[in-house]
Amino acid sequence: MNINSQFDSGNIEVINATDPSNISLAIKNDSNSEFKQWFHFKLTGQAGQDYQFEIINAKECSYVDGWKGYQVVASYDGEHWFRVPTEFTEQQTLLFKHQLAYSSIQFAYFAPYSYQRHQALVQSAQCTDSCQHQVIGHTVDGRDIDLLIIGDEAKAKKIWIIARQHPGESMAEWCAEGLLERLLNEDDALSRSLLNEAVFYIVPNMNVDGSIRGNLRSNAAGANLNREWLEPSVEKSPEVYFVRQKMLETGVDAFIDIHGDEGLPYIFVAASEGNPSYNERIAALENDFRTILKAVNPDFQTEYGYPLDEPGQANLTVASNWVGETFDCLSLTLEMPFKDNANLPNDETGWSPERSYLLGETLLNPLYQLIEKLR
Amino acid sequence: MNINSQFDSGNIEVINATDPSNISLAIKNDSNSEFKQWFHFKLTGQAGQDYQFEIINAKECSYVDGWKGYQVVASYDGEHWFRVPTEFTEQQTLLFKHQLAYSSIQFAYFAPYSYQRHQALVQSAQCTDSCQHQVIGHTVDGRDIDLLIIGDEAKAKKIWIIARQHPGESMAEWCAEGLLERLLNEDDALSRSLLNEAVFYIVPNMNVDGSIRGNLRSNAAGANLNREWLEPSVEKSPEVYFVRQKMLETGVDAFIDIHGDEGLPYIFVAASEGNPSYNERIAALENDFRTILKAVNPDFQTEYGYPLDEPGQANLTVASNWVGETFDCLSLTLEMPFKDNANLPNDETGWSPERSYLLGETLLNPLYQLIEKLR
Amino acid sequence: MNINSQFDSGNIEVINATDPSNISLAIKNDSNSEFKQWFHFKLTGQAGQDYQFEIINAKECSYVDGWKGYQVVASYDGEHWFRVPTEFTEQQTLLFKHQLAYSSIQFAYFAPYSYQRHQALVQSAQCTDSCQHQVIGHTVDGRDIDLLIIGDEAKAKKIWIIARQHPGESMAEWCAEGLLERLLNEDDALSRSLLNEAVFYIVPNMNVDGSIRGNLRSNAAGANLNREWLEPSVEKSPEVYFVRQKMLETGVDAFIDIHGDEGLPYIFVAASEGNPSYNERIAALENDFRTILKAVNPDFQTEYGYPLDEPGQANLTVASNWVGETFDCLSLTLEMPFKDNANLPNDETGWSPERSYLLGETLLNPLYQLIEKLR
Amino acid sequence: MNINSQFDSGNIEVINATDPSNISLAIKNDSNSEFKQWFHFKLTGQAGQDYQFEIINAKECSYVDGWKGYQVVASYDGEHWFRVPTEFTEQQTLLFKHQLAYSSIQFAYFAPYSYQRHQALVQSAQCTDSCQHQVIGHTVDGRDIDLLIIGDEAKAKKIWIIARQHPGESMAEWCAEGLLERLLNEDDALSRSLLNEAVFYIVPNMNVDGSIRGNLRSNAAGANLNREWLEPSVEKSPEVYFVRQKMLETGVDAFIDIHGDEGLPYIFVAASEGNPSYNERIAALENDFRTILKAVNPDFQTEYGYPLDEPGQANLTVASNWVGETFDCLSLTLEMPFKDNANLPNDETGWSPERSYLLGETLLNPLYQLIEKLR
Repeated sequence: MNINSQFDSGNIEVINATDPSNISLAIKNDSNSEFKQWFHFKLTGQAGQDYQFEIINAKECSYVDGWKGYQVVASYDGEHWFRVPTEFTEQQTLLFKHQLAYSSIQFAYFAPYSYQRHQALVQSAQCTDSCQHQVIGHTVDGRDIDLLIIGDEAKAKKIWIIARQHPGESMAEWCAEGLLERLLNEDDALSRSLLNEAVFYIVPNMNVDGSIRGNLRSNAAGANLNREWLEPSVEKSPEVYFVRQKMLETGVDAFIDIHGDEGLPYIFVAASEGNPSYNERIAALENDFRTILKAVNPDFQTEYGYPLDEPGQANLTVASNWVGETFDCLSLTLEMPFKDNANLPNDETGWSPERSYLLGETLLNPLYQLIEKLR
Repeated sequence: MNINSQFDSGNIEVINATDPSNISLAIKNDSNSEFKQWFHFKLTGQAGQDYQFEIINAKECSYVDGWKGYQVVASYDGEHWFRVPTEFTEQQTLLFKHQLAYSSIQFAYFAPYSYQRHQALVQSAQCTDSCQHQVIGHTVDGRDIDLLIIGDEAKAKKIWIIARQHPGESMAEWCAEGLLERLLNEDDALSRSLLNEAVFYIVPNMNVDGSIRGNLRSNAAGANLNREWLEPSVEKSPEVYFVRQKMLETGVDAFIDIHGDEGLPYIFVAASEGNPSYNERIAALENDFRTILKAVNPDFQTEYGYPLDEPGQANLTVASNWVGETFDCLSLTLEMPFKDNANLPNDETGWSPERSYLLGETLLNPLYQLIEKLR
Repeated sequence: MNINSQFDSGNIEVINATDPSNISLAIKNDSNSEFKQWFHFKLTGQAGQDYQFEIINAKECSYVDGWKGYQVVASYDGEHWFRVPTEFTEQQTLLFKHQLAYSSIQFAYFAPYSYQRHQALVQSAQCTDSCQHQVIGHTVDGRDIDLLIIGDEAKAKKIWIIARQHPGESMAEWCAEGLLERLLNEDDALSRSLLNEAVFYIVPNMNVDGSIRGNLRSNAAGANLNREWLEPSVEKSPEVYFVRQKMLETGVDAFIDIHGDEGLPYIFVAASEGNPSYNERIAALENDFRTILKAVNPDFQTEYGYPLDEPGQANLTVASNWVGETFDCLSLTLEMPFKDNANLPNDETGWSPERSYLLGETLLNPLYQLIEKLR
Repeated sequence: MNINSQFDSGNIEVINATDPSNISLAIKNDSNSEFKQWFHFKLTGQAGQDYQFEIINAKECSYVDGWKGYQVVASYDGEHWFRVPTEFTEQQTLLFKHQLAYSSIQFAYFAPYSYQRHQALVQSAQCTDSCQHQVIGHTVDGRDIDLLIIGDEAKAKKIWIIARQHPGESMAEWCAEGLLERLLNEDDALSRSLLNEAVFYIVPNMNVDGSIRGNLRSNAAGANLNREWLEPSVEKSPEVYFVRQKMLETGVDAFIDIHGDEGLPYIFVAASEGNPSYNERIAALENDFRTILKAVNPDFQTEYGYPLDEPGQANLTVASNWVGETFDCLSLTLEMPFKDNANLPNDETGWSPERSYLLGETLLNPLYQLIEKLR
């Protein structure tokens, strides 16, 4: 039996892996940070054999509620991911079992979206006439911060989409891929019409260092990027620093920041109700956005979500609050579950790359319908 | 030089094909009918050579306006179709030229949808748990009339979709394919939600005989199926007879009949305003359908369309009128152009299979949003 | 329950289809001919139900030995074909049973290769710089006789490949597709090297009328094309007439005629040993061809095959005899089984399109190795 | 303008990248080693702009002859790689120019084969009944050493294939992929027949650390693995240590070690003629292998290659010498060019992944034909 996580987004510490029926594992801290919950490892063993895994530090992870009703994501071929039930034990460990169908299998907190796939996405997207690729700065580890500009920068409306500030929320990049590829589809009348009015600035992965390192929430320097928008620094949070700088150059008329949530089994958006400058125009846009998205994609709902911020009490270090406040525009944080959508559950896949992708496609619908009103 | 149309949906008469720069062609009548406008033929010649084609009986075709601003559909590989400009001459012939890039090329009135593809569509669709295939009768030529039932027949709402009563309107089947495949996509939340409330009865091709024979509007017996709904017969219009019989068994809560229009370069629906039993409920549904579809698919519009029927003056031999009248339900004829959508033109492809497919996908949106109100 | 064969290559007569457990069928004669053995039909019924089929005229078919150890070919989606066991009964009927997994299924004597696929093959092949498409005449039903010329006609060696003189031998066209596509692969060093020395003339389907009509061996006029090579006529056997005429223009340095055999569960070639002009050079080429092919493709063997012709007693109405005699060149009939290769059996698929395709690819190996010696 | 190599197999040092017409670059040393020649970087710039690159330390690279007649490998989408001409200047720098068609482009010494693709290859291969995946040890950086076992270990003949001891020779893994996938193809009669006699042990990438680090020849510890076979160590050359250990367990009846060569524009094998135990049986096997491979794949040739070792003078630190000597078996080093095959040049692609893959497929042919004689 061999357990390894020495690969893109790998994260596991093997405590004891001598007995297949009693494998002890621990999740490692994010780089320079106390956050932890993302895991991703490969087991190589014997087809036909039963294996039982126990993540012994589940209770010390960042979102203990995330383990309740959670199902591990697994794949034999690295392409098709299925769910394996877990038990959050009385000792607050996470327990799951699986009989191997083939010699080796990957387990992860959610279906990974690799840096290799990220690069392929960027490279293939820019091979179209309506798209240009810019590197707007470098991460802490020295990687490119990739920005894709879709459409004509002279258009009046500037729409910004960013994903995966929190690297363990890999569903965010699957979602960004769906949005991006729909936008590039010249046969799609809605995309074409939208690009007649707007230009899109898309950062499919805000935190490539953290993604590669197998972090849940931090970048290589240990920063939670979604708490850096008020005062980012080139040293500690260059990913935010350079995107924010570019936003200030282009202006922003609408903004969506794509995330995953460990606890809630629902798709929802958080908005800017706590911003000092919040006003009825923004409230109406938020309301319309939700109504339209819900109508075109029933995976989205408005019943469950985060508690509302008190008026004027928004945390402006958060991307969507800072952008909304700075540009007086529609500005949203989109959340998808690590678990499943409890309204339309799928026991085989849970919430999945495919559903994240389709959600990304439908994000264009409210933007199209609201385009004239955006700012 | 060789010109042939002895294949699925082929239609051309060669008047003179001795001189590449002056090829004379004529379109043949539909089977047992005076209708004609569909053509489909293959030229085998010399790569690099210029060819000029003249359809000399263009003025005798069913929709002479169809030739104005029309571009011929062409393909070298039978998969990718592009447009070739035409001239509707003073002599009212249709003229077009092309330099061959390879040895042989197909030309058609619109991108064909073959019977082979129809069969593959039906066979692959039924290989899913949510779909069953029924043969509800046989055509004049003895072929199967294929009905696909998607979802659970016990559901309250019965939605019927039929396409290609007029066989030359091949875009109708591309559109039906898009609707069908979206409905079968288990990752699509809208499809899943819709199937929680409704069952779909889909006839992807109402007129397979006419399709194979290269007809524009008639079935093998010369019947215009969309004028047969009041009194169809097993002998002359079995395709309508058996579908209508099945509708009377299942009931209908919403109906869309998918078509193409020779003249208008727009996508639109015709509705039931001339039906004797027309009422405000139906008018509201029609209006909502149009509004929702337009919002999700800007290829659809409401400015251009057919003249409205006077109250009570609807022709009840037409499918959507008969169904609307019989079942007091939302009942629509959807029209797509043979030419292009003048609001979002694409010079390379014109209106295309891809865009028809995407339109089909978006037809589910208004049905989903209106599901509770349907009947 | 509905059984139909009104489609490309369809062939069945329903004697009685009222009781699922006792369905009586008969195979129809070829057009204007007594041959019969090919069948192809679709059943639409109930998923979960058992069906039993009896072909009551199996004993009157052309190759009764073909039914012994035979397994029916079946497909739900029209793409993937599997085998269903049969019993050749004491009453010399063919019996087989199947429980439907989905609503409808196709059964056939071998995996069909449709005219639509034939046309797609020709059209896509000619979209490459090394290939040209010629129509060299028309069939009895007026369809194109398609010739593909691969490579440079100025090359010294002229290699002719024809397939499917007998239309029910659909494996022949799968095989031709493999040979053709390998030849068009510019990355394949053997194909490129071969085309440095030779030009290929390929007729992927010699008998499209018979294929579409669901014949076993005859063309539309009832001719067995492989008995027409001495004196073909434009009226009765135009497919042979025009190919033969073109051969006389180009010359032939090697010839392979691709077939299927109803009885023998082996892959083998028949050669020209009975030709009047047979000589040691030809014998050596035949021997080398077999040795090389066997080495690169163990599906091929030399133990089983047809009885040898006596010297000088060859039937010169047969293509490979006539070509060998006329051009004093290597000239072979390649045979594949309808059943399976008993040396490497696959119970799931039997002999299959995939294996036929791979065999076609490897036919290029002996041609390459013998190219200098061909004539 | 941005140049970066902070990704899988990236290697470049930017000396000066301020002027697009005069970009100075240097290739970095391998990890803990003086070797260098592999490079891989991405340029993000302006579509339409001309760029000129100069690798100023080309003369200090390990194989200066490698730059003569060399063409850089480039890709816009990361999938399709084309060649860009270079000049090896009087100052012994490597110069090349390119006008950007899109915003960003990758350049490399040869088409990269990423660790992500390696993992996908291993994972998908093992999802078949005939294949098992074993991790036989860990690299210096702690990654898995992946072994794929194809077929039944009880079979008499043990065939070992390893690739990419030198990580910059990425064509070696493309080649291994071709061999592996053909072997897993159940429709391929040669693969099935071979697996009736033999079991394959395949290590598709012997040096994953070096591959990821962008090394030419060394592993993470600076070892040239192909000089470690006499006395490998767990510390410095675990990749060889564990493979060699497993070989001693299984025995070896034939061995191929797949490589690329910087200088020679040919495909060839080096053999064991300098081994102390070399004998006529081995010489005959080597000769037959070459003859058969050349016959099935004309990209392979026997005219050009390395100088022969004097009798008894073989360097036994080299894999193929050590294996040949230890197991008295056919043991070969296969070499492919970084440049092109001068016998069958392709100016657009040079030697390519596709051709490496096809070469891998054809390596099975001589193994099949020689299987009885192997040992």
